[in-house]
Amino acid sequence: MSDFAINLKDKLARFTDHWSPRVIAEMNDYQFKLAKVQGEFVWHAHADTDEVFIVIEGSLVLEFRDKAVPLSAGEMYVVPGGVEHRPVAVDECSIMLVEPRGVVNTGDAGGAYTAENDVWV
Amino acid sequence: MSDFAINLKDKLARFTDHWSPRVIAEMNDYQFKLAKVQGEFVWHAHADTDEVFIVIEGSLVLEFRDKAVPLSAGEMYVVPGGVEHRPVAVDECSIMLVEPRGVVNTGDAGGAYTAENDVWV
Repeated sequence: MSDFAINLKDKLARFTDHWSPRVIAEMNDYQFKLAKVQGEFVWHAHADTDEVFIVIEGSLVLEFRDKAVPLSAGEMYVVPGGVEHRPVAVDECSIMLVEPRGVVNTGDAGGAYTAENDVWV
Repeated sequence: MSDFAINLKDKLARFTDHWSPRVIAEMNDYQFKLAKVQGEFVWHAHADTDEVFIVIEGSLVLEFRDKAVPLSAGEMYVVPGGVEHRPVAVDECSIMLVEPRGVVNTGDAGGAYTAENDVWV
């Protein structure tokens, strides 16, 4: 049990690459991850779980097949399990993801954006 | 599925009472709750689950029997299941809690601070 809080901006300062989530905390079998994103991600879905996006710095758009939801710093969204989505950020955006341990960033899509899982910062 | 993001500060503006968490989102069987706190809460533990504190505005101290962990805006902490803790805030502080649906704010302690559960804002 740590003597110190987890500072989100301090953790974000420790990496620069995009679309590569870093785990910062675990609660039961869930993980809190930070990521920096810019550009268009791949369309994908997570069949077995919802996924929470919280914007820490900047802004992004969560694209769905039937709509687009803009998120700015201090805003969050729950992507329901099984629903195809694609995050898009014109400028660099820092986000926190909350999801069960083991969820892969590209879900069912795979491909070049697939990041190593369970990397801590 | 909402067309809009959840704005944390907009949600916080909708209530003023202390120690009374409001649910703002669900992910699988977990809930995200906002609360305003000030003063000393009761010592309690949640036997069956970890609990995440994220400070949105202000600062607080998470007191444990063997230490005290200060948290400011942009910082988070995971209180392990079964560990006695007591949040203390000199000035008003706004927090987000993440925990399984059904967790009561006073855990095993009960008493006057026990808030109605599953109240949404």
